[in-house]
Amino acid sequence: MSDAYSDLVETLRRELPEDSIVLSDSVLRENSRDFGQISGEPVMPLAVVFPTEVGHVQAVMRVATANRIPVISRGAGTGVSGGVHVQGDAVILNLSKMDKIIEIRPHDEVAIVEPGVINHHLNTAVAQFGLMYAPDPASYKMSTIGGNIATNAGGLRCAKYGVTRESVLSLDVVLADGRLIRVGKNTFKGVAGYDLAALFTGSEGTLGVVVRAFVRLRYLPVDERDLSMVFPSLEAAVEGVQQIAKSRIQPAILELIDYSTICVLDQQYSTDYASLGGAMLLVRLDGYGAEREEAAVRDAFMSSDVQLSKSGDAAATRLIEMRRTSRGDTKDDAYRTGEDVAIPKSRMVEYVHRLQDLAREENVNMRMISHAGDGNLHPTFFVDPTEGEQLLARLHRAVEGSVKEALALGGTITGEHGVGLIKKDWLAWEQSDEVLQLQHQIKALLDPLNILNPGKAI
Amino acid sequence: MSDAYSDLVETLRRELPEDSIVLSDSVLRENSRDFGQISGEPVMPLAVVFPTEVGHVQAVMRVATANRIPVISRGAGTGVSGGVHVQGDAVILNLSKMDKIIEIRPHDEVAIVEPGVINHHLNTAVAQFGLMYAPDPASYKMSTIGGNIATNAGGLRCAKYGVTRESVLSLDVVLADGRLIRVGKNTFKGVAGYDLAALFTGSEGTLGVVVRAFVRLRYLPVDERDLSMVFPSLEAAVEGVQQIAKSRIQPAILELIDYSTICVLDQQYSTDYASLGGAMLLVRLDGYGAEREEAAVRDAFMSSDVQLSKSGDAAATRLIEMRRTSRGDTKDDAYRTGEDVAIPKSRMVEYVHRLQDLAREENVNMRMISHAGDGNLHPTFFVDPTEGEQLLARLHRAVEGSVKEALALGGTITGEHGVGLIKKDWLAWEQSDEVLQLQHQIKALLDPLNILNPGKAI
Ligand SMILES: Cc1cc2nc3c(=O)[nH]c(=O)nc-3n(C[C@H](O)[C@H](O)[C@H](O)COP(=O)(O)OP(=O)(O)OC[C@H]3O[C@@H](n4cnc5c(N)ncnc54)[C@H](O)[C@@H]3O)c2cc1C
Ligand SMILES: Cc1cc2nc3c(=O)[nH]c(=O)nc-3n(C[C@H](O)[C@H](O)[C@H](O)COP(=O)(O)OP(=O)(O)OC[C@H]3O[C@@H](n4cnc5c(N)ncnc54)[C@H](O)[C@@H]3O)c2cc1C
Repeated sequence: MSDAYSDLVETLRRELPEDSIVLSDSVLRENSRDFGQISGEPVMPLAVVFPTEVGHVQAVMRVATANRIPVISRGAGTGVSGGVHVQGDAVILNLSKMDKIIEIRPHDEVAIVEPGVINHHLNTAVAQFGLMYAPDPASYKMSTIGGNIATNAGGLRCAKYGVTRESVLSLDVVLADGRLIRVGKNTFKGVAGYDLAALFTGSEGTLGVVVRAFVRLRYLPVDERDLSMVFPSLEAAVEGVQQIAKSRIQPAILELIDYSTICVLDQQYSTDYASLGGAMLLVRLDGYGAEREEAAVRDAFMSSDVQLSKSGDAAATRLIEMRRTSRGDTKDDAYRTGEDVAIPKSRMVEYVHRLQDLAREENVNMRMISHAGDGNLHPTFFVDPTEGEQLLARLHRAVEGSVKEALALGGTITGEHGVGLIKKDWLAWEQSDEVLQLQHQIKALLDPLNILNPGKAI
Repeated sequence: MSDAYSDLVETLRRELPEDSIVLSDSVLRENSRDFGQISGEPVMPLAVVFPTEVGHVQAVMRVATANRIPVISRGAGTGVSGGVHVQGDAVILNLSKMDKIIEIRPHDEVAIVEPGVINHHLNTAVAQFGLMYAPDPASYKMSTIGGNIATNAGGLRCAKYGVTRESVLSLDVVLADGRLIRVGKNTFKGVAGYDLAALFTGSEGTLGVVVRAFVRLRYLPVDERDLSMVFPSLEAAVEGVQQIAKSRIQPAILELIDYSTICVLDQQYSTDYASLGGAMLLVRLDGYGAEREEAAVRDAFMSSDVQLSKSGDAAATRLIEMRRTSRGDTKDDAYRTGEDVAIPKSRMVEYVHRLQDLAREENVNMRMISHAGDGNLHPTFFVDPTEGEQLLARLHRAVEGSVKEALALGGTITGEHGVGLIKKDWLAWEQSDEVLQLQHQIKALLDPLNILNPGKAI
């Protein structure tokens, strides 16, 4: 490889500005992986390229096609499924320097952005117009719009405002061979031809490189009411989710936190919620209906043993903001795995019981947070590295068991994080051979040499 | 063809129940077209098949593949783009008898339906659980869920609740060769693999036959407030749309009706709105925020010369319900064409002026209704068959001009009706060669013999 390798770098240097190609150890290392679990030593990429314009991306893809070298698009690397993990020879196309907000059109309620714009930056920029970019993965202060689109990211307020797909109008995409196409439409509605914008959304860098996005904005709510609700048990909290649904309230945010996670938060923030009960719901009601919805929630739980925060309680808001910027965990490692199943809403109590059984059987620890309004659960399994026999085998069985149980209840292996590398073996548990094959055929159509993030997502 | 034809019918008879194959003239005629314009005499299909179960659909597709005979899936035939128009030898697969609501799961807020279920029937069935199926094309009392999915139908309350795509969770699809696959997921969120459910949604029967849909339901609003607003001019009404947006109100329904359409409604319903002003907005505010939103609307228009209906005015509700079940027109014919562009919201006044200019230049009549909350406009151009020279050429130029002007403003040729047959030549005005080609490649992948509604949609 080493001759071919210096050829490749030589060619890239001819096509791109000097400083856009970085080969330093530290940058290679930083760009070798995401927040997802990794087994063994990370593999270093051949080079990291930092394009600053669309033409650079096209040049990289042309060179990659000519040399049959895999290219891994990378936003901020906050993915948790190993979507940007390097596996063999590969160039990292790091889009973080294409970070311009090209235009905000407040009266059209849209924005046009480069892929490397940080979610939070876009939200800050549009807030002055009374607008927001709704999808808000808990990584929103770090992750990029391009990465959010490539994973079809969810987030907290997606319960009410929809996932990333619902905010993507059109995309400029560089194809494997370097051609630039525009898919989708620049209007709120549009049904001309097939929904290619949805096909690229969530395709995890395997079909093309998103170089520009035309996104829909929503109205910043005129009112927000935050509530924390402490329940005696996890079961009671899950019932609470159903109770809110029965009142026909669609919260902007509806998060469930289990006892073990409450303890983590208490430690991090010197609070003492753990002494109050066994599980919490964090609820944000927004818009013109927020006040009436708050009253309806209070009504619904009046005669129950729920401890509801007072109206306007700053602590509830602080808790929600805490949750909005954390998964309850940092990087997964060999001893800790965070999952991301989604299941039908009515099966949550049942599912949590199965998780508890699994953890007990395998003698591992489990805690859980959940975007409960959408039935999207994030159980985390972990073991103490110093404790017991066959640690990793037990952890592995618990994790796989949790995914199988979700599927048995009609769920999916990934609600919002994407398949990446880590969930690839599980895809066949969920989808039929025909459907798997069809996806490989679509991939082959768009990327016949299999150089766009090969081995990921499908 | 006649030998091959009797062979085909013979084979179908062997595979399907006797009464599912209909060859009578009247049924062939009824099934030869939709509500869209047709030039010349309609072409009769070879046969109309009424499957009552998935196996029948698979059998038809196997026979069609073996005989290389095109199959046109048909719901209720309320399409307005000629999506089901017969052009040559073809079998109509009429799904209207697969009309069972298979299951409603109120606690999961989902329903499972056969494709022939009428939109309105599903809504009636789920209402008893306090739920609704949100997408409501103005044809909702006639059109089928399968047809709605195949066209990614919009509707009135899509401004707030999203188009059909946003309510489709998973689909069972019979492929060209008769294989049955399931795409999508049965949960609210899910990102496993590519978004194939979105690919089939809006594909107008060209990629597969939808035989079962797993759809998301929404909460029936606890409150609804209907307003009619009469403005002195169309321009003022469009400004009114912006004014409502500025108040950060997201109405469930926000329809604009021009003077000419008001006159039609006045005639149909013996009312006299035309004497009050030049254009109307019909507004439905719903949910917990409805009351406060109504107050905000009244505030925003307090010092203007808008005539706002009184709170709880039954006439406003009647107007909205009138609009919810009509396009303002019936079947298009040679002398009348209804269009369906969508444009950026801020360009509406500009666009309407261009439409008026066009109508004047070509000396044709124009009227317009609009799902104004989404920037989706339905201008209708029409001429009196007895009036003037070169009628059809003038009409044609006005229609094509209106579409080109929409594209020039950053719009799309079809907001919700689909490309079908009628808008096919225009697709190349909107999309690049690469994008057109990519869609044909996807089509060829799924339907290599080109027997699924050939010549439509792309
Ligand atoms: C603390 C924390 C909280 C999180 N919370 C959530 C959450 O609530 N919801 C959620 O959905 N996720 C969450 N995540 C996961 C992650 O943040 C999201 O998947 C995010 O969308 C990734 O964005 P990124 O810019 O970091 O992309 P990366 O991790 O760099 O890449 C993710 C995938 O997208 C591809 N990609 C990136 N940019 C492009 C591009 N321009 N064109 C084509 N492909 C591209 C990559 O190849 C890779 O497959 C969380 C992660 C962390 C660490
Ligand atoms: C009065 C009136 C008002 C209307 N208002 C609206 C509106 O507000 N919004 C809007 O979007 N549309 C509207 N339309 C257009 C039309 O009603 C919609 O496109 C509707 O979704 C068509 O449903 P259908 O069952 O009649 O389908 P059809 O007209 O029978 O078929 C439409 C397309 O879908 C395909 N198809 C049908 N069933 C299936 C299936 N099971 N599998 C695969 N392909 C299939 C057909 O091949 C065809 O391409 C209106 C039409 C009328 C007449």
